[in-house]
Amino acid sequence: MKNSEIFFGKDILSLDQFDKRSIEKVFATAAKIKKTSTKKLLRTLTGKVAGLLFFEPSTRTFSSNSAGFKRLGGQTVEHQNPNVTSSTVKGETIEDTVRMMEQYCDLLVIRHPIKGTLEIAANASSVPVINAGDGIGEHPTQALLDMFTIWEKFKTLTNLKGLMVGDMLNGRTVHSLIRGLSMYPNNTIYLLSPKQLKLSREEFDLYTKRGINLIEIDSIDQIPSDCHFWYWTRVQKERFADKKEYERLKLSFILTKKLVSKKAGKDTLLMHPLPRVGEIETAVDSDPRAVYLTTEARNGMYVRMALFSLILKS
Amino acid sequence: MKNSEIFFGKDILSLDQFDKRSIEKVFATAAKIKKTSTKKLLRTLTGKVAGLLFFEPSTRTFSSNSAGFKRLGGQTVEHQNPNVTSSTVKGETIEDTVRMMEQYCDLLVIRHPIKGTLEIAANASSVPVINAGDGIGEHPTQALLDMFTIWEKFKTLTNLKGLMVGDMLNGRTVHSLIRGLSMYPNNTIYLLSPKQLKLSREEFDLYTKRGINLIEIDSIDQIPSDCHFWYWTRVQKERFADKKEYERLKLSFILTKKLVSKKAGKDTLLMHPLPRVGEIETAVDSDPRAVYLTTEARNGMYVRMALFSLILKS
Amino acid sequence: MKNSEIFFGKDILSLDQFDKRSIEKVFATAAKIKKTSTKKLLRTLTGKVAGLLFFEPSTRTFSSNSAGFKRLGGQTVEHQNPNVTSSTVKGETIEDTVRMMEQYCDLLVIRHPIKGTLEIAANASSVPVINAGDGIGEHPTQALLDMFTIWEKFKTLTNLKGLMVGDMLNGRTVHSLIRGLSMYPNNTIYLLSPKQLKLSREEFDLYTKRGINLIEIDSIDQIPSDCHFWYWTRVQKERFADKKEYERLKLSFILTKKLVSKKAGKDTLLMHPLPRVGEIETAVDSDPRAVYLTTEARNGMYVRMALFSLILKS
Repeated sequence: MKNSEIFFGKDILSLDQFDKRSIEKVFATAAKIKKTSTKKLLRTLTGKVAGLLFFEPSTRTFSSNSAGFKRLGGQTVEHQNPNVTSSTVKGETIEDTVRMMEQYCDLLVIRHPIKGTLEIAANASSVPVINAGDGIGEHPTQALLDMFTIWEKFKTLTNLKGLMVGDMLNGRTVHSLIRGLSMYPNNTIYLLSPKQLKLSREEFDLYTKRGINLIEIDSIDQIPSDCHFWYWTRVQKERFADKKEYERLKLSFILTKKLVSKKAGKDTLLMHPLPRVGEIETAVDSDPRAVYLTTEARNGMYVRMALFSLILKS
Repeated sequence: MKNSEIFFGKDILSLDQFDKRSIEKVFATAAKIKKTSTKKLLRTLTGKVAGLLFFEPSTRTFSSNSAGFKRLGGQTVEHQNPNVTSSTVKGETIEDTVRMMEQYCDLLVIRHPIKGTLEIAANASSVPVINAGDGIGEHPTQALLDMFTIWEKFKTLTNLKGLMVGDMLNGRTVHSLIRGLSMYPNNTIYLLSPKQLKLSREEFDLYTKRGINLIEIDSIDQIPSDCHFWYWTRVQKERFADKKEYERLKLSFILTKKLVSKKAGKDTLLMHPLPRVGEIETAVDSDPRAVYLTTEARNGMYVRMALFSLILKS
Repeated sequence: MKNSEIFFGKDILSLDQFDKRSIEKVFATAAKIKKTSTKKLLRTLTGKVAGLLFFEPSTRTFSSNSAGFKRLGGQTVEHQNPNVTSSTVKGETIEDTVRMMEQYCDLLVIRHPIKGTLEIAANASSVPVINAGDGIGEHPTQALLDMFTIWEKFKTLTNLKGLMVGDMLNGRTVHSLIRGLSMYPNNTIYLLSPKQLKLSREEFDLYTKRGINLIEIDSIDQIPSDCHFWYWTRVQKERFADKKEYERLKLSFILTKKLVSKKAGKDTLLMHPLPRVGEIETAVDSDPRAVYLTTEARNGMYVRMALFSLILKS
């Protein structure tokens, strides 16, 4: 998809596939779907079937994909936890599972706990595959919805100052979002995390080379004022071997009403990919700047609907 | 909904929300849906998506909601056992789960093992929430379908004599049905259960004050003849800490062919919310008065379809 | 269905229900669906709801049923692993589960681990029931799709020479396919399996009496050349009490590229009901004669779509 806005029949595996023009096309399509609700829209995918293969727990990504595909008039074949319900129990490889599902479906949306599996799946498949998260790897549609939420608010993705807090090491949504913002000039992101959960040096260098300005900070006192967005994240329990270590780190940084008053600007978007497990005070929810439970979540459906229609309609 | 028949956009949490006029409206709508099967009906909910969140095992309630919503032309996003398949694993609260689902869905149907959870969910949600059973709390649509089944047969909900047998303590369908029949004058219900599973004194007094005549009996010999309905129930295994106690009590009272011959009237409806686990002899199934496997179950779908269309169509 | 091509309202439990004329009708319908994709086709089952009850893990059969029903414009109510998610947990019998589901659905597709359960289910149900595999019993739609795949290639089901390899004892797809080919004259099937997994003598005699020529062989050297099809199968781990015995036998015979070069004819169909767990080298996948991951799998959807439309449209 590099240097092109042609989506028809393509896989969506990584944000690296996108250039500015193709991202613009996704956003324009999502914005159009968001504001229209015509009968024609409801028939966009009539007769199409998507296979949703979720090898890891999910409500948000699963539900927004499922609802989005159906809101376009399509149907889905759904496997949540195929480890329990499917041939995977009998020892089937991911390639065989994918090659089987492609016989019945026009598109596959796959989440898998192991990084790299989505590439294997996409190579095996003759129908388009969308990565809905592969372990500590990527979650490109999450990045797109986060970028869309920022773009919708500020009408630009350049000259932004952002803050990311939490698990920089394991949070795949963090990685994908940094990748995305690296494509646009003059963005600065402050990274705040426990020492053990910092971005790996490889990734830090990779992103920096792409032109984004990453600044690691150690305490909430160092948060700059007037950020365009704060992107809080959950410490990823499921990636810890040592549960005690997890318990120690999980609430290192909490987004409180007090912190918002002290450090957020009047237009700062308060974002979180969710689920949260205590790292945002519920008192923050009613702040008009808090979009994590509302606009950000809902945009996930619209961005996915945009991709579905771009990929499946020539 | 008190003193009103306006359902549009409302939650359905408890039978206490209903008055006679609103119940009448549900019944009239359900009866109309039951006898028509037009193309227009199949398009009632075109473009609507319901989220089904079942935090407890269910086939009956789940299936009738799922089939009913789809028979009206809508689509569903389904989570059975979200404890296993969803973000709940990661520690998400019910409020966050609900606020996420409302971004993708036009209505939520929720079952949860803990009483009171549905109220929390409905408070968090901006889209209508239907209680599909909350632990030992309520199961209002079950009560409505039972009342509809009685009303369909006798064309009235007043001056009835009924019998309820089984687990009066933990059976939420029992509680909801007694509440419902309390709204109509001059109803008498005989309650037969093991001593340990009697209606709590608080609930006994509450319902009695509302005007229903409750008579507790101890043995099948005391069952009056010519009841309008018998409402048998399962002893709720999942509510017992002590499984031996459950084993001792589960089959205290069995609905047999012999008992039907001896004590049922010629028009007595033989009802049960199902599933049953031995407390009704299968020999009773073919009795024309037995509606538990047929009319009563099917009415569950029609009553839910009525609620869906009343809540979602202005 | 014997001596008749009338499918409307019928159960599909065993291949023994079919005669040549009814099989021909299924194949003609499947072929027509396969090559057309009209709007009319998409409305064939508008307003119909199928219940999919899978009491055993499945992706292939589940997904092809689910996708197929939806591609005809119908909707489904789905229970994967009802042992976990449904009233079966509360101790409900299969008869009660079926009699409940028939209240909401127009047709039921059931898979169950215990042989004979499908007959019980069909007897209890007033709506058509399709057997999607009952333990070591039958899997008639699998046999139909395999026969359809052979028929599509050779335009006949007579005078065929075939090879079946793997678990002849427990493989229900093997049993159903042999039954099917027994209906046509002059077919010969070579059976290659570990001694412990040979066809039972009862079944060997039963099929032989029906007119098929079964020849048991002991080694790959005895495979005749110029077979019309090779039907490889997985050793059924889930049927073994002794897992060590399973490990010893599971890879007794492997379909390799070398073996294909040596023994397969230029038109030999390479088939497998899938999933496979090592008994076919992936190097064979790209052979144009290998249809297991492609045509054979996809035909499963078309054959099921044919049955759905024949059973539900008068």
